[in-house]
Amino acid sequence: MFNIALLGAGRIGQVHAANIATHKATTLWSVVDPNHEFAARLATQYQARLQSIDEAMADPNVHAVLIASATDTHADLIELAARHGKAIFCEKPVHLDLARVRDCLKVVNEYDVPLFIGFNRRFDPQFRRVKTDALAGRIGTPESLVIISRDPSPPPADYVRVSGGMFRDMTIHDFDMARFIMGEEPVSVYAQGSNLVDPAIGAAGDIDTAFIVLKYASGAMATIVNSRRSAYGYDQRLELHGSEGLLCAGNILENQVQHYGQNGCTSALPEHFFLQRYQSAYAAEWEHFVAVLRGEAVPECSGDDGERALYLADKALESLHSQREVSL
Amino acid sequence: MFNIALLGAGRIGQVHAANIATHKATTLWSVVDPNHEFAARLATQYQARLQSIDEAMADPNVHAVLIASATDTHADLIELAARHGKAIFCEKPVHLDLARVRDCLKVVNEYDVPLFIGFNRRFDPQFRRVKTDALAGRIGTPESLVIISRDPSPPPADYVRVSGGMFRDMTIHDFDMARFIMGEEPVSVYAQGSNLVDPAIGAAGDIDTAFIVLKYASGAMATIVNSRRSAYGYDQRLELHGSEGLLCAGNILENQVQHYGQNGCTSALPEHFFLQRYQSAYAAEWEHFVAVLRGEAVPECSGDDGERALYLADKALESLHSQREVSL
Amino acid sequence: MFNIALLGAGRIGQVHAANIATHKATTLWSVVDPNHEFAARLATQYQARLQSIDEAMADPNVHAVLIASATDTHADLIELAARHGKAIFCEKPVHLDLARVRDCLKVVNEYDVPLFIGFNRRFDPQFRRVKTDALAGRIGTPESLVIISRDPSPPPADYVRVSGGMFRDMTIHDFDMARFIMGEEPVSVYAQGSNLVDPAIGAAGDIDTAFIVLKYASGAMATIVNSRRSAYGYDQRLELHGSEGLLCAGNILENQVQHYGQNGCTSALPEHFFLQRYQSAYAAEWEHFVAVLRGEAVPECSGDDGERALYLADKALESLHSQREVSL
Amino acid sequence: MFNIALLGAGRIGQVHAANIATHKATTLWSVVDPNHEFAARLATQYQARLQSIDEAMADPNVHAVLIASATDTHADLIELAARHGKAIFCEKPVHLDLARVRDCLKVVNEYDVPLFIGFNRRFDPQFRRVKTDALAGRIGTPESLVIISRDPSPPPADYVRVSGGMFRDMTIHDFDMARFIMGEEPVSVYAQGSNLVDPAIGAAGDIDTAFIVLKYASGAMATIVNSRRSAYGYDQRLELHGSEGLLCAGNILENQVQHYGQNGCTSALPEHFFLQRYQSAYAAEWEHFVAVLRGEAVPECSGDDGERALYLADKALESLHSQREVSL
Repeated sequence: MFNIALLGAGRIGQVHAANIATHKATTLWSVVDPNHEFAARLATQYQARLQSIDEAMADPNVHAVLIASATDTHADLIELAARHGKAIFCEKPVHLDLARVRDCLKVVNEYDVPLFIGFNRRFDPQFRRVKTDALAGRIGTPESLVIISRDPSPPPADYVRVSGGMFRDMTIHDFDMARFIMGEEPVSVYAQGSNLVDPAIGAAGDIDTAFIVLKYASGAMATIVNSRRSAYGYDQRLELHGSEGLLCAGNILENQVQHYGQNGCTSALPEHFFLQRYQSAYAAEWEHFVAVLRGEAVPECSGDDGERALYLADKALESLHSQREVSL
Repeated sequence: MFNIALLGAGRIGQVHAANIATHKATTLWSVVDPNHEFAARLATQYQARLQSIDEAMADPNVHAVLIASATDTHADLIELAARHGKAIFCEKPVHLDLARVRDCLKVVNEYDVPLFIGFNRRFDPQFRRVKTDALAGRIGTPESLVIISRDPSPPPADYVRVSGGMFRDMTIHDFDMARFIMGEEPVSVYAQGSNLVDPAIGAAGDIDTAFIVLKYASGAMATIVNSRRSAYGYDQRLELHGSEGLLCAGNILENQVQHYGQNGCTSALPEHFFLQRYQSAYAAEWEHFVAVLRGEAVPECSGDDGERALYLADKALESLHSQREVSL
Repeated sequence: MFNIALLGAGRIGQVHAANIATHKATTLWSVVDPNHEFAARLATQYQARLQSIDEAMADPNVHAVLIASATDTHADLIELAARHGKAIFCEKPVHLDLARVRDCLKVVNEYDVPLFIGFNRRFDPQFRRVKTDALAGRIGTPESLVIISRDPSPPPADYVRVSGGMFRDMTIHDFDMARFIMGEEPVSVYAQGSNLVDPAIGAAGDIDTAFIVLKYASGAMATIVNSRRSAYGYDQRLELHGSEGLLCAGNILENQVQHYGQNGCTSALPEHFFLQRYQSAYAAEWEHFVAVLRGEAVPECSGDDGERALYLADKALESLHSQREVSL
Repeated sequence: MFNIALLGAGRIGQVHAANIATHKATTLWSVVDPNHEFAARLATQYQARLQSIDEAMADPNVHAVLIASATDTHADLIELAARHGKAIFCEKPVHLDLARVRDCLKVVNEYDVPLFIGFNRRFDPQFRRVKTDALAGRIGTPESLVIISRDPSPPPADYVRVSGGMFRDMTIHDFDMARFIMGEEPVSVYAQGSNLVDPAIGAAGDIDTAFIVLKYASGAMATIVNSRRSAYGYDQRLELHGSEGLLCAGNILENQVQHYGQNGCTSALPEHFFLQRYQSAYAAEWEHFVAVLRGEAVPECSGDDGERALYLADKALESLHSQREVSL
């Protein structure tokens, strides 16, 4: 049994708490959050204790930490946990600043603890199957990837201001997905973007609609289609075209009932929010982290993966501003 | 917190044990099964105790029983639990003999305990949505219902011999579904059947393929299409046609990935087995039973529902043998 | 070049006129219709002549007749054409009275002219593919067939009164389809029906909603689901289940555009009317008839097929009235 | 009745010949082609005469020409026809050289004859419906367009060498489609491409796989995904995302039959080739040209549209070579 200290009791922390508590091999040992109310509620629900970060670090019963706190605390907490020899599951991103990420990963390396970065979509059964089927040769050589990724509604401008911008906050998932599916590093990136959804986002210096093109050394290409808005729910699809076929991962619908009437045949909408859409992905990534804790696996998304996705986000931003393709 | 004694630690008992244990309002208090190995395994897994049936009945901490034992023990256990004032969740059917069912329900009535019969499919979100949408008037007046229900593979002939036959064992779910969706009792039934899947089923005096037609007083009709075999997984669909439209509940596919190649576009198969296909239905019916325990609801599937579905099965068999429509 | 006399210039005659005129091997030689206006319009459009029925029969240039006149004239016109040695394409049915059909077919036999009965749906590429795939063994042994066939809207009661009733007028297509797909004759039929769509149809002594069950000597079964009304267009589907799989022929949609919005994903309706839905079937059956004229094929739907479909309609009616399965 | 001289009796000329001949308002008056065998075959089939280009120009019975000859003859033939006062339907492109296009259009302008450029896809009912629905406000303000356009198999390298390259030969259709759907001119273009399908194409200096990004003054964007190869047939789709929804135009499948078996559910492939896929589009564009001949419409695709699509192709090539976004 592995005891987990959960650092951060907000929305995403609650998702992980449930997975930690229901997994046979893990116990939610303690909850750490400066927001006492949030921390206490979660601790009560899962019969865990409340700890300060120092207590959790000093507690020899804590085998691992799950970092689900505010983005700007991730790097510090990773370093702290590494220094105390705890295994680390950290929500993306490590940090919004690439230099800080690199420093942090050096510390992790030095203390040699496992670090898993929670790019949850890699564990979605649909997207994973596309990769597996492609590796099994079902479409020959992959040639072009189209990722369509649209959020149901834009974040508040306050959040946008501290988010690092759309590419570092939202598209970073798609950069990681492109890396996951294609299995090679891109050699160039081009980005185009607009502020169409909410003027407040533009006023905060950000965009909300974007197209990105990645080119690989093999000649293969990928494109990412992003929007902060989708009137029909969370739009999460991808298509991988190869020399011998095409693999398409479609949306998961809320139900399988169709209504036929005078105006046509109406199906349900895609699952509306990431908590539902990626519920099984969150469970699967926890299953993977348990295998890491057992020494049966190395982290499928490492600190290195976190760094590389952020690097692509930075370079996409450079392309957006320079209006040219950027070599990587 | 309601403490539940689980009577029966087999396959379906295990499904319920998980739902009981993970629900916030219920505890798996004890496991009762003459098969000590099965019982012990489940008890250990969920930190429950082992009890004999007498101990469970005498235990004032036990608020309710979940009967998941062999079919021929259901009626006896229901009566026993009723006499001890326990609330009852019983897997379908109450009994294979209609007279025995009626006697049993009298006892339940006398002791006035809640009895819920586990027709799980009523709690499937797809089928439930069809009913809800129909009640909301989305297709006008319902006129005809088509239920397609095919098992992935036939049961062994040994089981067939004690199953009460296809209509009482398998079609009974579809009879209940027709009652659930149409909301009125049929006035006639006609059944046609064949032994096509496994000669051993025929040798055991049963059929494995059937079409049934139900007629309602309103003039509406329903048909049930059954097979004990489906090469493509568990086929569970229905369509309700009304004066102003059609509602179709399709299969749930194993995944949403499509492969396009030289031979066409291939989608995943339907969920293969009832444990996966009706996973959310099992959870939802437990949620409902908790509401019953809390006194916030009366059982949506009562003993009466169990009796009526069995009655339809009996009359369908009479029609099959007499080659005529049977009035109800 | 084969010269065709078209007997009947109404709606269905116009469909055939277009196919006759555009086929490279046939000429619309003449149009025969007591309604002079209809006849003249078609003749002008395709540069054909107007003839009386006697002129057409006497005209040695006329190689074949296409009978698209009122139902009660079919048998007489078939006999007349047979006696004049013309090849015959006749819209279904030969006649509504089975004895009259048999007398008529004797005459055809005596004069040994080819007679094709226009069960157009056999030539629909979807349904034909189901048969071809089944014969190729793609689903093992066929075990059960479900035909769903709903008209967009009911006919006027005036028509209902002379139509021979729903089974002889509408379901006859589905009886023929069942015969076409299953390739064996049923041994029993059961029918259940209601008057739900239009009270005037009931007042005319007919039904508008029906379920029919056919049983075959092999143990295979078929069911037909009929309605004179469909709020969502012409509903024309079938499913053939076999020991190793399932073949489904779905509706043809009016277009392939999908709209996603707040209320779901909406697809187009099925093609609304038989003229659009079976446009390619009409062209294909004419292609087949040309092969018959060339002596390269015998009629795929013969007078015998017409007779057998009508026999099933008669027996279904007997079942409906007697409330029992009728042996064939 | 309008008499049409068909200039070019090859594959695409044959498609147009059939539409000209079956349209009630047009006659295939003559066929002009230096390949005498091709010309004679078509002329015989449709009872048209053979003419030299000079005879056709001098013939006062010829009201319009349909130019379906080799690409490098288009501009000369357009000028010739314009000088003789004939209305002109010309297959795309006017010419591969933009300067030559502009000179040619000046001549057309001077002689004031109608010129229609055959961008057939604008007349596809699916794509047209997307535009109509968007204009009707069904998705709010259009924000991003994704066009996926893949040919079933690459052209021979010999053709590639004279084709003007992938952008001018193949993508030009997609540039026109983007212009058609978005209804505004892009302000920048970026192109990325590879040679992945056939090394001979690379040896001929061309690419066979491309992603293109267009940006509009409104901030809206479009992307084009191209490949010269598709293992699963002709892949012709588009999606238009707007502030209030999404419109998707999917592929047209060869049939609507689905096969369920042990390996999944298999649907038919997309229509394999442009002749089938755009059959109704070719008929609809001819219908439109007849309206132009009647003076009831002006050409929906004018010479100006041809020029603008070619301009986008040229600029995309400039972007591909310069590895930067090109302003328009």
